[in-house]
Amino acid sequence: MAANARNAGPAYGMIGVFDHPWFGDLFADATTRQIWSTDRQFGHMIAFETALARGLGHIGNVPLDMSQAAVKSLKGFSPDIPALMAGTARDGLPIPALIEQLRDAAGPHAAAIHTGATSQDVLDTALVLSLREVAALTTTRLMTLVQALADLDKRFGKKPLMGRTRMQAALPITVSDRLHQWRAPLENYQMELADKTEQACVVQLGGPVGTRATWGAKADDLAHHVAETLGLTTPTGSWHTQRASLVGFANVMTQITGSLAKMGQDICLMAQQGIDEIALEGGGTSSVMRHKNNPVRAELLVTLGRFNATQISGLHHAMIHEQERSGAAWTLEWMILPQICTATCAALGSALDICRKITHIGSKD
Amino acid sequence: MAANARNAGPAYGMIGVFDHPWFGDLFADATTRQIWSTDRQFGHMIAFETALARGLGHIGNVPLDMSQAAVKSLKGFSPDIPALMAGTARDGLPIPALIEQLRDAAGPHAAAIHTGATSQDVLDTALVLSLREVAALTTTRLMTLVQALADLDKRFGKKPLMGRTRMQAALPITVSDRLHQWRAPLENYQMELADKTEQACVVQLGGPVGTRATWGAKADDLAHHVAETLGLTTPTGSWHTQRASLVGFANVMTQITGSLAKMGQDICLMAQQGIDEIALEGGGTSSVMRHKNNPVRAELLVTLGRFNATQISGLHHAMIHEQERSGAAWTLEWMILPQICTATCAALGSALDICRKITHIGSKD
Amino acid sequence: MAANARNAGPAYGMIGVFDHPWFGDLFADATTRQIWSTDRQFGHMIAFETALARGLGHIGNVPLDMSQAAVKSLKGFSPDIPALMAGTARDGLPIPALIEQLRDAAGPHAAAIHTGATSQDVLDTALVLSLREVAALTTTRLMTLVQALADLDKRFGKKPLMGRTRMQAALPITVSDRLHQWRAPLENYQMELADKTEQACVVQLGGPVGTRATWGAKADDLAHHVAETLGLTTPTGSWHTQRASLVGFANVMTQITGSLAKMGQDICLMAQQGIDEIALEGGGTSSVMRHKNNPVRAELLVTLGRFNATQISGLHHAMIHEQERSGAAWTLEWMILPQICTATCAALGSALDICRKITHIGSKD
Amino acid sequence: MAANARNAGPAYGMIGVFDHPWFGDLFADATTRQIWSTDRQFGHMIAFETALARGLGHIGNVPLDMSQAAVKSLKGFSPDIPALMAGTARDGLPIPALIEQLRDAAGPHAAAIHTGATSQDVLDTALVLSLREVAALTTTRLMTLVQALADLDKRFGKKPLMGRTRMQAALPITVSDRLHQWRAPLENYQMELADKTEQACVVQLGGPVGTRATWGAKADDLAHHVAETLGLTTPTGSWHTQRASLVGFANVMTQITGSLAKMGQDICLMAQQGIDEIALEGGGTSSVMRHKNNPVRAELLVTLGRFNATQISGLHHAMIHEQERSGAAWTLEWMILPQICTATCAALGSALDICRKITHIGSKD
Repeated sequence: MAANARNAGPAYGMIGVFDHPWFGDLFADATTRQIWSTDRQFGHMIAFETALARGLGHIGNVPLDMSQAAVKSLKGFSPDIPALMAGTARDGLPIPALIEQLRDAAGPHAAAIHTGATSQDVLDTALVLSLREVAALTTTRLMTLVQALADLDKRFGKKPLMGRTRMQAALPITVSDRLHQWRAPLENYQMELADKTEQACVVQLGGPVGTRATWGAKADDLAHHVAETLGLTTPTGSWHTQRASLVGFANVMTQITGSLAKMGQDICLMAQQGIDEIALEGGGTSSVMRHKNNPVRAELLVTLGRFNATQISGLHHAMIHEQERSGAAWTLEWMILPQICTATCAALGSALDICRKITHIGSKD
Repeated sequence: MAANARNAGPAYGMIGVFDHPWFGDLFADATTRQIWSTDRQFGHMIAFETALARGLGHIGNVPLDMSQAAVKSLKGFSPDIPALMAGTARDGLPIPALIEQLRDAAGPHAAAIHTGATSQDVLDTALVLSLREVAALTTTRLMTLVQALADLDKRFGKKPLMGRTRMQAALPITVSDRLHQWRAPLENYQMELADKTEQACVVQLGGPVGTRATWGAKADDLAHHVAETLGLTTPTGSWHTQRASLVGFANVMTQITGSLAKMGQDICLMAQQGIDEIALEGGGTSSVMRHKNNPVRAELLVTLGRFNATQISGLHHAMIHEQERSGAAWTLEWMILPQICTATCAALGSALDICRKITHIGSKD
Repeated sequence: MAANARNAGPAYGMIGVFDHPWFGDLFADATTRQIWSTDRQFGHMIAFETALARGLGHIGNVPLDMSQAAVKSLKGFSPDIPALMAGTARDGLPIPALIEQLRDAAGPHAAAIHTGATSQDVLDTALVLSLREVAALTTTRLMTLVQALADLDKRFGKKPLMGRTRMQAALPITVSDRLHQWRAPLENYQMELADKTEQACVVQLGGPVGTRATWGAKADDLAHHVAETLGLTTPTGSWHTQRASLVGFANVMTQITGSLAKMGQDICLMAQQGIDEIALEGGGTSSVMRHKNNPVRAELLVTLGRFNATQISGLHHAMIHEQERSGAAWTLEWMILPQICTATCAALGSALDICRKITHIGSKD
Repeated sequence: MAANARNAGPAYGMIGVFDHPWFGDLFADATTRQIWSTDRQFGHMIAFETALARGLGHIGNVPLDMSQAAVKSLKGFSPDIPALMAGTARDGLPIPALIEQLRDAAGPHAAAIHTGATSQDVLDTALVLSLREVAALTTTRLMTLVQALADLDKRFGKKPLMGRTRMQAALPITVSDRLHQWRAPLENYQMELADKTEQACVVQLGGPVGTRATWGAKADDLAHHVAETLGLTTPTGSWHTQRASLVGFANVMTQITGSLAKMGQDICLMAQQGIDEIALEGGGTSSVMRHKNNPVRAELLVTLGRFNATQISGLHHAMIHEQERSGAAWTLEWMILPQICTATCAALGSALDICRKITHIGSKD
């Protein structure tokens, strides 16, 4: 597959910071961005259609050889991206245009492509396949960061630090006490993320109005088969209008950036001249004050925390679907959820970067 | 205890709707409000101080008879609310003034009161005792509502209904299909709420800078004892600056109102003249159009859903504590969390009320 | 009028902090709360009904003596608050129950009461009468605060201060430079608030569906007369579903708390031991660390800034009315707007309090 | 200038929807996107540096011929985008790396480049130059849309329509009444936008800590000259930490999308089968239900309204700068403000598109 082959999209990458030609590597990183790349996203949609084509043969809704031929045509398929773009602008989503392309490519086997499914089945399933990748990257980075904080504890944990409450000196603590407050929530998030990923990574298969009625008696077998092919779990029905699992996933993402923002803010406070409780190598420079060593990445953690804290509100509003599908609510999800996930993966990357650059923690003598 | 005895507070109850003299019973109900009543809130603080006084005797930090005498003095204590009010205005929280009152009352046994604890230990523990009551009421109402929806399914489930997507007629479904989309998330929330309640219902005991250092070697025994007395669990340390468990709790609350808002919006849409898919008895009247039967409670579900979707953002921002305690972040939590919980309990009450008033669901013939 | 005479409302004042028996004087003050008191709020509704009764006589829709008798009955009226509460719970707003009481009291002159108006005409007009009081208090406090900052500038302005960017020492500035950044936006808000108050203080008079059709040919004369009586301006039509003027008002309120939060955060940073750029007398004490002098009011400015920054989002959502009136959207406004206004007046009060307690600003020697 | 010449940025355009290879033309349009294109954004930065280089010569801080030579070198400059990207990742913003490139290009005239300015002077001025373009496009589209609604009024205004309140049939109105509620706020926004654009379009020139001290006695002359060159106004000082003018601008943008969302939601409600009060040609199709004619653009208006209502909260939080510059708060602005502006321009485009496709409004007979 070569999704970009005919990609003549309009992408200037200037409105959103994550894909931005010069802001991009501040707000994110190549690994994080890769998850949402055209190829990967498009690949998930094709993976769904492939699993469905296989499943339709498996339950006998189409002949097995037609199913196999359709799967084969999907394998070699390369999308006409400008046509997807035009179709999306017309239909509100890319699937009708995509299906037309896929069925053209399948020729006489078109009846095994997308039959009985609805656009939301494709997009939601593709989304959870992306979230699974987000979860994997997040988990890895959480583990690495927890380890990095444990290493800092080994190096500096016994050093004294002034405990501060309400931004006033309170009583002495140790560096280890402070590091524990940074690390403990990250440890909890690992399990929480596993739970929420499991709840979210459920195949979407409901058909036009979410009832699976289009596939007849073997609809649940089909759902099971498609889920198995994709390594997802099967719900008892469709979750077209039940978005709680996505909100739950985004909630963990946002909690992670919240905890990292606390860490980032602490570091900014510790790095103040007059406080001098932390030393970092290689912070940001200024265009005029070359003596400065700005804790850029620590500030960024605060930024990303507040960004996600803002965004999560929109996802809760997006739960309020009308009837069997709300175009308005669902579309809002698309605008927000990838940004939340990206901010979280990026924040973890920045937090790790900070840990590696810490050369000292603890009260100045 | 008679917390209101000397209550000469300034409460006009006009700014917030939940306690409002005429809006109050629209936005909430007596049972819900009772959870946050002066007596109940104050009682939780005394419960904490009592458990601590007992615990200090138990671990031997104060003599057993002093501990018992202190507990006795707490039992008969009645607060001077205006003095709490003045102290809160000065100190940013009521505990310093309260402790002064409690120690005065304890006289020679004052050393068993609050010793080693910090204000946050009291307020956070009192909060989770309130949340436990919120969780209990929420759970009961969720169960009753799930049952009410199941009953509606029995009565009307087989009737036809037009499935609608993007607010356009799509394909026929049954009333049962629609009801399932309302009920299924509520069933999931029961388990989710149990999890989040368990994670939140943890005693707070850290002392001034959260390290438990003030109680010496037996500090963890003390925490365990206090937790046991209060029926809470014990964390390995304090969670002064780790607010994820509260955000997780609020997230479920907000998800519940999100799902109920979807149900409420559906009902408003079904009740439109020209659609006529639902009939409700006893909706709201208008001051001029007496023929109207407004689906007031269904609209309210949408309102409460959007209210909580707005508020939850503030709680995520409130995760960003500085150092060992942020007055700014912590105080923000007080402004928002009780409102979220109240909105959720009230929304469940309204949803139940709606279910009881439904006399018909299904397409008009 | 004695609005509280029969007030047996359920107010515990525990859910919202502004009316709270012990938090109340931290988050607000008596002057601010008074604006939203039962008496004042209720008085605004009666003021509207009185102006309308007069206006109906003026345009000749009812006989002049009936109009005068109705006005007289309104003057002596005392509401049955529990009945308003029950009516609000049933109808979604207090006006139908109130009109019933008012018409009972007016007896044979009832035809001059509320005739042709809708509930929203009463509640919206009463609201803008409250906002006018909010604006007056805000303006006074802004002026006083600007003066207090100017006074500080006179006392400390020439003292040196380290300019800090990205929380790092940058280049020396003066105290005056810092104070200017706090004061300048407050000066701008005075004019902005005057504009937005003028745009918001418009009478609401539209009748059931906002068209003024119920009053016939002289409807615009009526609107003009009612507006004049109340000292409001007259729009060309009703603004039932056009909420931009309220959002514009709330936006200024929120900008004010945003600027005060910047000032509060700066003060917290300046008050840190090791930085020591500000000294305040009489900050908050701790329940265990009596040596502390917490900048409670400065932290509170940050809290209130973030609270309003959260709330304003809900008001923007509340712009999305359906058709001629959205119960769902309108009700959301009631939950949020008074809280935003109160937070702003209270923040200004706290900022003033801080200014009075500053005994020193400037770098330690 | 050929900003894209060496652009080897990482842009997949997949995370944000506005630049997305297939979602892009749904959420925005080429004209809107063009405002934030690399070339245009970069051009604004060079415009600032050019005006500054000129100004430095004008006030005599550098020799006139050096100033002219520097201006010339700026004219021919083509950026090394990957180097900007790497610099941004290191410094938290692109300016230090850019200045290095510009000074390299200026060679012996480097002293006329950026001297005395700070990164924020460049980025903020470039931003308001973008906002000026946003305002121009918004104004044009508002005018066109107001006209389109007036045209619809001419065609369909006298037709009857059922007035609906609380989603229930109330009393008959005309199509003109409904259209007036859509149009009136848009007319108001034209003046409001002009005001807010004037307040926002102010040159930023403060130097490292915002005091203009680096330019000596003629600093205000310099600011005036730079502003004049760029067609901006001059403030009395810098507004590095005073973000109210940007929030005010974003507030109008968000109010516009709020009003358009109201219109969009009304259209979705009118388009329901059983209500049938509007007919649109060429709505979206479904991947399986080819009979459907989804009001995709009307739903999108609701989406964009709720998106901006969510985002605006983050901008209010971003007002809370620490000291002379907050990296954390400022960076948050970059993540949100362009998205709000784009959503608004795009919503206006979609609203226009809808108006053109309306073939009927009014009650079915």
